[in-house]
Amino acid sequence: MHAREVQDTVSLIMADFQILHQDCDSAGRCGLLRTAHGEVETPVFMPVGTAGAVKGITPRQLKETGTGIILANTYHLLIRPGIETIEKLGGLHKFMAWDRPILTDSGGYQVFSLSPLTRIDDDGVEFASHVDGARIYLNAEIATDIQNRLGVDIAMCFDQCAPHGIGAAQLEEVVARTILWAERAGRAHANANQMLFGIVQGGTHLELRTRCACELVRIGFDGYALGGLSVGEGHDEMVRTVAHTARLLPRDKPRYLMGVGTPKDIIAAVGAGIDMFDCVLPTRNGRNAFAFTENGPLRLRNNAHINDTEPIEIGCECYCCTNFSRGALRHFFNSGEMLGPILVSLHNLTFYQRLMAEIRRALRRNELAELAKRIDY
Amino acid sequence: MHAREVQDTVSLIMADFQILHQDCDSAGRCGLLRTAHGEVETPVFMPVGTAGAVKGITPRQLKETGTGIILANTYHLLIRPGIETIEKLGGLHKFMAWDRPILTDSGGYQVFSLSPLTRIDDDGVEFASHVDGARIYLNAEIATDIQNRLGVDIAMCFDQCAPHGIGAAQLEEVVARTILWAERAGRAHANANQMLFGIVQGGTHLELRTRCACELVRIGFDGYALGGLSVGEGHDEMVRTVAHTARLLPRDKPRYLMGVGTPKDIIAAVGAGIDMFDCVLPTRNGRNAFAFTENGPLRLRNNAHINDTEPIEIGCECYCCTNFSRGALRHFFNSGEMLGPILVSLHNLTFYQRLMAEIRRALRRNELAELAKRIDY
Repeated sequence: MHAREVQDTVSLIMADFQILHQDCDSAGRCGLLRTAHGEVETPVFMPVGTAGAVKGITPRQLKETGTGIILANTYHLLIRPGIETIEKLGGLHKFMAWDRPILTDSGGYQVFSLSPLTRIDDDGVEFASHVDGARIYLNAEIATDIQNRLGVDIAMCFDQCAPHGIGAAQLEEVVARTILWAERAGRAHANANQMLFGIVQGGTHLELRTRCACELVRIGFDGYALGGLSVGEGHDEMVRTVAHTARLLPRDKPRYLMGVGTPKDIIAAVGAGIDMFDCVLPTRNGRNAFAFTENGPLRLRNNAHINDTEPIEIGCECYCCTNFSRGALRHFFNSGEMLGPILVSLHNLTFYQRLMAEIRRALRRNELAELAKRIDY
Repeated sequence: MHAREVQDTVSLIMADFQILHQDCDSAGRCGLLRTAHGEVETPVFMPVGTAGAVKGITPRQLKETGTGIILANTYHLLIRPGIETIEKLGGLHKFMAWDRPILTDSGGYQVFSLSPLTRIDDDGVEFASHVDGARIYLNAEIATDIQNRLGVDIAMCFDQCAPHGIGAAQLEEVVARTILWAERAGRAHANANQMLFGIVQGGTHLELRTRCACELVRIGFDGYALGGLSVGEGHDEMVRTVAHTARLLPRDKPRYLMGVGTPKDIIAAVGAGIDMFDCVLPTRNGRNAFAFTENGPLRLRNNAHINDTEPIEIGCECYCCTNFSRGALRHFFNSGEMLGPILVSLHNLTFYQRLMAEIRRALRRNELAELAKRIDY
C-alpha cells in the first residue's frame, strides 16, 4: 500500500480508478475514482441534476449531504439552454456552480424515452425536442463532442436504449448499434481530462449482455456502465443481469449501473460488483413528501404526523432533521410551501450519501449481507 | 449615552425601543428594538413567512441575508396547521426553526381580503376559511390570545381593514371599530415577554387617521402600526398619509408601516418617521424572475440575458451573485427549475436587507435624500 501511494503522483493521469478493498463474501469492492475535478470514494451515489440543477437544492447544500459527484443530462442541456450557451457561460461546472466531478449521460436514454423520434438508422437519431418540437440530430460523434465541450469529468457513449420486453431480434439490433456507436464514440473522444464510459445494453437477455460487454471491453473504455435496467424488469431480474454482466467487465475499471435505484437495489448491485449509481428517487420522492429512513419510508402527508415532534430520522445530522419536526414538514407540504420539497429532498440526499458511506464501511468489514438485511426496501 | 448604557440592564424589560439617532433633515431615525428573542436595528425590513416559511428560503439562508426579524400570519397559521398544533410542536419559533424575533399580524387584513365574510359586528368577525370553507370566529380577545399562544415577540391588535376608496361614513365605522377592538386587545393581552402594537386605520382620510392615532396613543401600546396603506392609493398619497400620521405617534415607540413596499416607498416612509416594514415583494418578485438591483430592476427571463455571464448585481455578496450568472438563472426559470425562484428570492432579500443597512447609514450621515435620488423605484 505504501509503495502504491508513492507511485500515485507519477501515475495520476493513468490511474483513474483504484480498488482499495475487495469484499470476501461478494463481488463488491471499495475504490477511489480520480477525475479532473477531484476524487470520490466508491461505491458512490450521484444525485441527478438533469437540467443543470439538482431540483430544489443549491450546490452548497448538495455538498453538505456528502455528495462528491453529480450527473447531468446532455439531452436536456442540449435542448435548453443549448451547448453554445453553456460554453459562453464558462462550461458546465461554472454554469451549475459545482466544482466537483460531473458525469453526463449521452442523451441516448432520453432520446428514446422522451422524444417523438423522426428517424433512426445506423448513423444516428433524428428526434423532436420535447420542449418546442425542433428537430435535432444526435449520433455517436455529436454526443461525444457535446460532452467534450461541456467540460465534464466523465462522458458516456451514445447508446440505443430499448424498452423492457421487446423481442430478442429487436434487442439484438439495439445491441449491435450500441456497439457500433461505442466504437465511434471512442474514436471521436478527444479530451484527455475526461473519462469515457461504454454502456452495456441487452435488456435481461444474458447472451446479448455478454456479447455487448465483451465487444465494449475489446474497444476499451475508462469505465463501463449498465444501461437499460430498472425499466420494469423487477429487482431480482435486475440483480441477476447485473451480476452476470459485472463479472465480464475488467476488474480495474469502474462499473456504473445507470438510473438505479432504491436502497435495496443499490446494496444488491454493490454486492454484484457495481461502483457507481445515479437515481432521481431521493429528490423526486422528496418532492412528494416521501422520506427515506433506516426504518423504512415515511410518508409525511400522513395524518399521523400532524403533531409529530420528531425529526424525519433521529440521529440524522442533516439541516432538515436538526431543525424541523415531521409536523412542520407535513404542514409545509399541505400548504404548498416550497420548503417541504426542499427540506425532504435534502434529507433524502443525505440519507443516500450516508447509505453509501455505510455500504463502503460494510464492504471493508465484510458485512454487506447484514446491511442488506437491515435496509430492505 | 454612557449613563443610558449603564441603565440598560435595569430597564431592559421596559426599554423595548431606543432611538439612537434622529435625522436632521427628515423625521427619520435609527433605533434599536429589543425583543424576547434578541434585538434588531431599525429601520428594519421583515421578510414575510406567511404560513410558517419564507417561501423557498431556509431559516439559515434567511439569516445570511441579514434578516433579524420576520413576519408570520396569524390568519394562515390559524387555518393551517392550527394554533393547537403549533403549540404541540413547541411554539412558532421552534415550528419555523427561527430563533430570532417574530411579529405576527392579527389576521385582520386577511379576514377582510381573503375570506368570504359571513358576519361582522362590533364584537368580531365570522368568516369562512379560504382553504376548506370552515366557519371561524375571530375577535380582539381571540386574536390576541392566539398570538400569545404562538409565543411571538410582537403581536398586533385585531383591526378592521377597509378597501381603498370606500366612503367617509363607512371609513369612520371602520376606525371606530378598530379603536374599540384595540382597547379590548390591550386588556386581553397577557404576555409580558411580548409587545403589542396598535394599528392606525383611516385610509387616506387624514382627519380619521388623526382620530384613530390619538385614541390608540391614549390607550397606550408598545408600538404603533399604520394599516390600510399600499392598497392602491399610490406612492404620493401613501407618503402624505404616513407623514401626517407618524408625527401623531409617540416619538419613543416604534412605528410600523404594514405591507410596504418598493425600495422607493420604504426610503420615503423612513423619511416620514417609520421604523419597521414588511412586504412580500422580494420573494414574490423573486419567484417571478424579477431581481432588485441598485441600478433598477432586472427581468431575468429577458432574452438579453441568454449568454449573460454577469451576476445579478456586481459586488453583491449573496450566494446567488457569488455563484450564478444571469444566463444560468434565466435558464433555471425557463426550465422550471426551483433553483431559479430560490436563488433570486435569496438575492432580493439580501438586496432589501442591504438597502435597510444603507438607509440606516444614510440616516446617521443625514444623507437620506441622496439615497432616495439614487434608488428611485
